[in-house]
Formats: sequence, structure tokens, C-alpha cells
Amino acid sequence: MNILVTLDKAYLHPLKILLGSLFINNPENTFDIYVISDGLDEADYKDLEDFASKKSSHIHKVDFDESVFDEAPASRYYSHAMYYRLLAGELLPHDLDRILYLDPDILVINKVDELYNIDFKGRLLAAASHGGSLGVFDTVNKIRISNLVADSYFNSGVMMMNLKAMRELIDKEEIFSYIDKKGKGLLFPDQDTLNSLYGHEILDVDDSLYNYDTRQFEKHLVSSKAEKDMDWVIENTVFLHFCGRNKPWHSGYLGRFSALYKHYEKLISYYIG
Amino acid sequence: MNILVTLDKAYLHPLKILLGSLFINNPENTFDIYVISDGLDEADYKDLEDFASKKSSHIHKVDFDESVFDEAPASRYYSHAMYYRLLAGELLPHDLDRILYLDPDILVINKVDELYNIDFKGRLLAAASHGGSLGVFDTVNKIRISNLVADSYFNSGVMMMNLKAMRELIDKEEIFSYIDKKGKGLLFPDQDTLNSLYGHEILDVDDSLYNYDTRQFEKHLVSSKAEKDMDWVIENTVFLHFCGRNKPWHSGYLGRFSALYKHYEKLISYYIG
Repeated sequence: MNILVTLDKAYLHPLKILLGSLFINNPENTFDIYVISDGLDEADYKDLEDFASKKSSHIHKVDFDESVFDEAPASRYYSHAMYYRLLAGELLPHDLDRILYLDPDILVINKVDELYNIDFKGRLLAAASHGGSLGVFDTVNKIRISNLVADSYFNSGVMMMNLKAMRELIDKEEIFSYIDKKGKGLLFPDQDTLNSLYGHEILDVDDSLYNYDTRQFEKHLVSSKAEKDMDWVIENTVFLHFCGRNKPWHSGYLGRFSALYKHYEKLISYYIG
Repeated sequence: MNILVTLDKAYLHPLKILLGSLFINNPENTFDIYVISDGLDEADYKDLEDFASKKSSHIHKVDFDESVFDEAPASRYYSHAMYYRLLAGELLPHDLDRILYLDPDILVINKVDELYNIDFKGRLLAAASHGGSLGVFDTVNKIRISNLVADSYFNSGVMMMNLKAMRELIDKEEIFSYIDKKGKGLLFPDQDTLNSLYGHEILDVDDSLYNYDTRQFEKHLVSSKAEKDMDWVIENTVFLHFCGRNKPWHSGYLGRFSALYKHYEKLISYYIG
């Protein structure tokens, strides 16, 4: 299976927890992990490869020609890193046809097969909306980004990408020109751009399975009429997404899933190193 | 390392989680697990042995002559099972000199070596008091059981037993006569008996390490002046004890460590089976 991550050096630790939890909960699979980074050096890549290879998986450093960004609007607000996910089709080797993008503040607690093998129905990618199953914010965000024909306002932290369709449909110039026009007026620059330009090309998947906002346990419980209790989450949810400013690898973090995340940090050091 | 568990059929599932968490967090050790049970049949023992042997550990069914209990007071209130822990020295093979007793509602999240190799200083066993580091209930319980010379009122859910000293010092007749005298007047029959007769022979260990009551996260945090936060617990605590009537293997359980316990139920099915 192909996995895509984009990160800078500050996220190396959570990346290992993400990958370790992916390995531990998907023992029958091996992974090719494509990394687009700012500032990781050769020693970091070697360390990641040593880690992944203990579970028969491999790290691929994604090299690309910086001229891709020649026409990107020069901006004090956004770095090139904001384009990495949007332009994954172009930046990644063209023989890949699907890849699972994951933010590094995610813990994998179940098997990823079902999402990985999803039928894209011709869409660009599959993603979840945090408004979706909770029924909030969706319309507000759709108005904010002016794409009312989209099914939803999607969170870009987990995206099952149809790379072939992305290479065909995503227009680099359109993205650059959109960013140029908006200037600093975007709340979440790449997520807003994705939703604004391509929201109607995204296949909606259930956030309680594939992008569970760990701050929203009570809301999920209530909106599901108590069906989605802790047993349900542990049994069914694939990706726990530690959204927000407080992160579980910080000391003092006390969310509902803090013991689980922090214990994974230990488990991974025993089992993967 | 020798482990002792006593249980009936209803506790087979949590016993596997206890043992699985012991194996996963002590990968450098193997275990001889002595089981004293009411009502486990040969198929249960075979299932447990299949489970343990995957981690190079073994189950030993403890057989003993029922005549041990010939002089036990006939009582409608208490079954013979209440004596199993108190008489472990007598019931277990006499060539064992130390064993770690664990209740089945415990999750092991760190290495047990340090407690296992404790210097008993001539005492019968090492245990923790839930009043101890929290500074509550201790005196109330010491008065209740009339043993004011004991260091504390000990919880009998985790006991590092000095079997040699137990064989020398524990007097079966004294226990039977104490139970006979108290009738149904004991709140926690075996724990009260242990504390009442032998509390002053017990070595006190830190409950936040060796018998962490999972209902008391906030109290530990406050009484330690915020030192014992979630990072501290995950890094240091060896035994999480899910005390009380609500158990983490019940659906709907929502304690601070519920995600961790419930995820262990899954992890163990992947890794041990």
C-alpha cells in the first residue's frame, strides 16, 4: 500500500507514532511511504527507513524539480509546502495510481484496507467532513469558500487519493491563480483551496470511521443516539485525528484518547524501536 | 517469573487481557502462570495454555487436596475461593519461593521486574494501600479492621508474595477462627482478614506505581502537585487497577483509561490470538 506524508522536522516524532500505529494495526500489510518534506536531512531519512524496514516497509523520499513552483505566487503568507498535497499527482512518481495521504497527528487503530480499496466513482479523492456526521459547520464553511455544489466541506487530514484523476483534473495554474487572488484571506490555505476548487469532485466518507476528531467524542455519542460509544470507536474507527492546538505528544494533554496515544509512544519503542 | 491468578469462568476474558498486557509490556520475560479456579474446565485450561505458549509462557493448574478446607467454617456467606490468596503458600508447590498475585481486572502497562525482585525485609508480602499516597480512608479502615499497628490498609489486588514466609507465618487455623468469629461482618472478606491478622507483616509499596486505582486520576494529579499527569502514569505506572463495579470490558464504560483498555482487547487478538 502507498502512503503519503508531508512534514517538517518538528513532526518527526508524531510521524513515527503514526507509522508505528499503522504497522501494528495492519500486520498483514507492508507499506511504501512517500515523504515530501521541508528540512529533513539524510540522517532523518535513514532513521525513518531503519524504523520502517523493521516492519518490511520502505521510505521513499520524493524528489521533484523546484521549477514546478516557478509560477507560484510569491507570497509572504504561504510556503511551497502548502501545495504538496494539492499537487501530489504531479509530484509523485507517475506510475502510482492511488495513495493514502495522512496528517502526522493521526493514530491508526484499525485496518485501512477498506478505505484504501475504495471505488472512487471517477472522483479525485475520498475524504471526510467533520461537519458531516455531526451536522455542524458544513454550510458555514461551504459559504465561506463559495462552493455550494460540493457535498460538504472536507477535512484534508486524511485523503485517499485517485492519483490518475488528480493528474488529469487538477490544474496547477488554476490553483496558483486562486491563491494569488485570495492573498492572505484563507483560513486553512490548502484545505480551503481544495474545497473551493475541487470540493464537488470529492467522494464523501464517514468521518467517524476515517477522520475521527478526538475532541468530539461526546458529539459523536449524542448524534449517533449512543451507538458510537467507546466500544464502537475502538472496534470500527480507523483514524483518530488529534485536531486542534493541543497535541497528545505534549505533556499535560488530557483528551479522551490521551492514555491510548501516550501508551502507543511506549509500545512503538518496544516493538519497532 | 511466577504469576498467580484466582478466578471463575466469568473472568476468563479479562484474564487474557491481563496476561496479554503482561506479555506485551515485558517482552524480555517469560512467565509461569499458576491458576487456582472455581469452575474452569479442561477446555478453558487448554485455551489459556495455547494463548500463553504463543509468548513462551505456561499455565499451571493448581491442584490441591480439598481436605485443606476440612476445618473451614461452614458458611453461607463465603466460598472456599476466599481462602485461595491467603493460603497461597500452602496451596502452591512448595518449591516456589516468590510469586506475583494479580487480580484479573488489571492492565499491565510497564515492566514488572522491580516489584518482582523486591527485598521483602522479612515481611510476608508487598502490597499497596489506596489510602497511602492519596492520604484518605487509611485510618478509617485500620480502625474498622482493628489493626492499628499495620502501616496501612492494603489492597489485595496486587501482592508480591514471599511464599517461604507465608508458609512459615500464616496460620490456617487462625484464619478459619477469625472468619468464624466475624460471620458475615466483613466488608471485603479476604482483604479484611489479611489486613486484620497480617497487616503489620506487609511491606508498603507505592500505589501510584503498583496498584493505580483508575478512578483516582484527578486525586493522584492533585496530591502529587500535578507531577503525576498522564505522561507520568504511562511512563511509570506498572499496574492499572480497574477497581469498582464498572469494568472496562463492559460496553458503555467511560473511564479515563477506557480507550487504552478496549484497544488492548483488540491488540491482543492480533498479536496473541
